[in-house]
Amino acid sequence: MEEKFTLIHKDEHSHARTGVLHLAHGDVQTPVFMPVGTNATVKALTKDDLEEIGFEIILANTYHLYLRPGPDLLEKAGGLHGFSKWNKNFLTDSGGFQVFSLSELRKITDEGVKFQSHIDGSYHMFTPENVVDFQAKFNSDIQMQLDVCTGFGTEYHDAVKALKQTSSWATRATAQYEKHVAQGYRGLLFPIVQGNFYKDLRKQSAEFVANLNPGGIAIGGLSVGEPHDIYTEMLNYTAELLPQNKARYVMGIGTPDYILDAVEAGIDMFDCVLPTRNARNGSYFTHDGPIAIKNAKYAEDFMPIDSECQCKVCRNYSRAYLRHLFKTQEILASMLASYHNVYFLNNLVKEIRNAINENRFNEYKKNFLTRYFKGK
Amino acid sequence: MEEKFTLIHKDEHSHARTGVLHLAHGDVQTPVFMPVGTNATVKALTKDDLEEIGFEIILANTYHLYLRPGPDLLEKAGGLHGFSKWNKNFLTDSGGFQVFSLSELRKITDEGVKFQSHIDGSYHMFTPENVVDFQAKFNSDIQMQLDVCTGFGTEYHDAVKALKQTSSWATRATAQYEKHVAQGYRGLLFPIVQGNFYKDLRKQSAEFVANLNPGGIAIGGLSVGEPHDIYTEMLNYTAELLPQNKARYVMGIGTPDYILDAVEAGIDMFDCVLPTRNARNGSYFTHDGPIAIKNAKYAEDFMPIDSECQCKVCRNYSRAYLRHLFKTQEILASMLASYHNVYFLNNLVKEIRNAINENRFNEYKKNFLTRYFKGK
Repeated sequence: MEEKFTLIHKDEHSHARTGVLHLAHGDVQTPVFMPVGTNATVKALTKDDLEEIGFEIILANTYHLYLRPGPDLLEKAGGLHGFSKWNKNFLTDSGGFQVFSLSELRKITDEGVKFQSHIDGSYHMFTPENVVDFQAKFNSDIQMQLDVCTGFGTEYHDAVKALKQTSSWATRATAQYEKHVAQGYRGLLFPIVQGNFYKDLRKQSAEFVANLNPGGIAIGGLSVGEPHDIYTEMLNYTAELLPQNKARYVMGIGTPDYILDAVEAGIDMFDCVLPTRNARNGSYFTHDGPIAIKNAKYAEDFMPIDSECQCKVCRNYSRAYLRHLFKTQEILASMLASYHNVYFLNNLVKEIRNAINENRFNEYKKNFLTRYFKGK
Repeated sequence: MEEKFTLIHKDEHSHARTGVLHLAHGDVQTPVFMPVGTNATVKALTKDDLEEIGFEIILANTYHLYLRPGPDLLEKAGGLHGFSKWNKNFLTDSGGFQVFSLSELRKITDEGVKFQSHIDGSYHMFTPENVVDFQAKFNSDIQMQLDVCTGFGTEYHDAVKALKQTSSWATRATAQYEKHVAQGYRGLLFPIVQGNFYKDLRKQSAEFVANLNPGGIAIGGLSVGEPHDIYTEMLNYTAELLPQNKARYVMGIGTPDYILDAVEAGIDMFDCVLPTRNARNGSYFTHDGPIAIKNAKYAEDFMPIDSECQCKVCRNYSRAYLRHLFKTQEILASMLASYHNVYFLNNLVKEIRNAINENRFNEYKKNFLTRYFKGK
C-alpha cells in the first residue's frame, strides 16, 4: 500500500524520530500522545477543548462502543466522527484487551474470543474478522487487529501458541480489511507485535508483521506486570526490529517519563487513560512532578498549577480555587484538571518534536526528568 | 441611596417590565435568570461557558462558601471574582435558607441562628451582622439580609413573630452594611419581604422594607409547600405593594412556566438550581416541553434536542449521542445538558424582554406555554 507515514527527522544521538502520519481525517505530527475517549468522548472534555489544545487524533475503545451504542447505530450516525462530532482522527483498539480486563468470562479459540458483557452479562464473540467490520462501521482512521496478549511469566510454549494465534489472526484481519478498503474504507489497520518476553519470538513476530506491509505497527504485550527495566529493554529490542518507514504505536503510555523512554526507543504513538483518570482524582502534572491538589498546603496557594504552562487553566485559576473545587466535589474540578493534564502532555510531545528536529532529544529528556523527579 | 435600577419599559397589558440593574461588575438586563453557582462554580460549566451564553450575573451560596473555603480565604483571593475568575456579577444569599434545609440543628434567637455544619457537625452562628460581613468579604455585588422563613400553614402569631424578627434583622443588617459602604464596598443589600400567607403582614413587611430605601427587594417565604394558585396570588399581591423603582427578586424560580408567571407579576430577577440539577439527571428543556434523554425512543434520533435552539449543543450534537453519553454516565452528559438548559432559559428571558418592550408579553406567554404544555 501507499506509505502513510513520512519520516521527518531522526535524532542524531538516539532512536527518537519525528514524522507525519497521513490519515483520512488529517495529518498527525509524531511523536504523538493520544487522549483516550472510551465512549466516544474524552472524559470531562468537549471536542472543542481537544481542538483548542491542538490534538489531531484521539482513541476510542471498540469493546465499549460495540456494547453501547453498537456498530450499527454508529454506522447510521456517520461513524464515530458523525456521532461525536470530533472531526479529526480516531484510533480504535480491537477490544481484546478490555475483554481480558473487564469481562467476566473469556474463552479463546482459533475462531476468536468469547466473552460476557460487563454491563448485562450477555454473551458475545469477537473474531479477527468481525472486529475489523465493527471498526470499519465506526469509520476508525486507525484500527487494531484482534490479538492474544500474554502476561509476564508466561511459559515459552504458551507464548508460542499465543503468537501463532496472533499472527494467524493478523492475516485474517488483513484479508477482511482489504475487503473494506476495496469498498472505499480509508482507515488503516495496524497489526500487533507479540511474543511475550522471548526475544526470538519478538523477532519472528516483528518480521511477520512487517511482511504484511501494514499502515503502521503496534507493539503489544508490554506493561503486563514486568519490572520497569525489562519493559524498557523489550521495548527497545522490539522497536529496533521494525521497519523505519512505518509508524510505531505502544499502548498504555501516558506519563512524561514513560513517554520520554518510548520516544527514545523510536516509538511514534502512545495513548493512556492516566492523564484524565488521575485528573479526576485531583492529580495534576507539573514540570516539578505531579501534585495532589487535595493537599492542605494548597489551600491558600494563589499560584497557578504550573507557572510555565500556557493552558487556560494555568492562565486563569489558582491552586486554591482548584483545591476548593476538588474538595467540594465539583464537576468543574474534573473538567479543569483533565484539560490541564492532556494539555501538558500535548505540550510535552510538541517540545519533544522540536528537540528531536534539533538533535537535542537526549539533553531535553535529561533536563525534563531531572526537574520532574527532583522532589522525589 | 442613588438608584441602582432603571425601569426601561412597562408592558401595557400586564405588570411585566424591563429594566437595567447597575451593579459593580456591570449592568444586568432584567428580567434576568441567574444560574446557581453554589460553591463559586455553576455545576458542570466553566466561567467561559457562562460568558459565551451571555450571563451578566450568577448566584452563589453563602452557607456553603462560609463553610468552605471560608470568608477569610475568599477575601484574600480577591473575593468571589478573584477566586473563581467570573468577572461579572455575583449575587449571594444570606445562608438562612440552607441552614433551614441542610443543617442538622437550627436554633433561632433574637441574636441570630445557631446551626451545625452538614459537613463536619461543627457549630456556627449566623447573625444579621456577620452574614453582611461575610458577603462583604466575598465582595458580592448583591447580598441578602438574614431572614426568618416560615412554612405554609404557619399560625398567625408565629408568622407575626417571624416577621418581627426579619424586620429587626433587616434594620441591623442595613446598619452593618452601611459601615462596609463607608469603607468602599460597592455591593447592594436586598432586604426580604416576609409575612407568610397573611396579606396584612405582607403589606406591613413590604412597606417596612421600602422605607429602608434599599438597592433592591427580595420576596421571600414563597414556594414553601403552598398550592400553586396560592403561590401565584401571594406573589402578585406582594409584588404590587413594592415601589416601581426597585428591582424585585424572587428566589427558587427556574422553569419556563414559573418564570413567565413571575415576570407577569412584575418580578425582575430569579434563580434556581433546577436547570442544572435536572440537566445532570438527563432532563433537557425544549420548546415542546422537557424531555428525558434516557428514553429509548431517542436511541436512534439524530435530531438536535431542540431544532430552534441556537446553542452549541443543539448546533452540534444529536439526541442519540447525548443519550449515549447519559447512559454511559459520561461527565460530558452533564456538561452539555447544563449548557443547553441555562442557554435555553437565558434565551427565554431575552425573548421575554423583547416581548415586553413591544407590549406583547401576554401573547408571548400564551404562545410559549400552549406549545410547552401541548404534550401534557
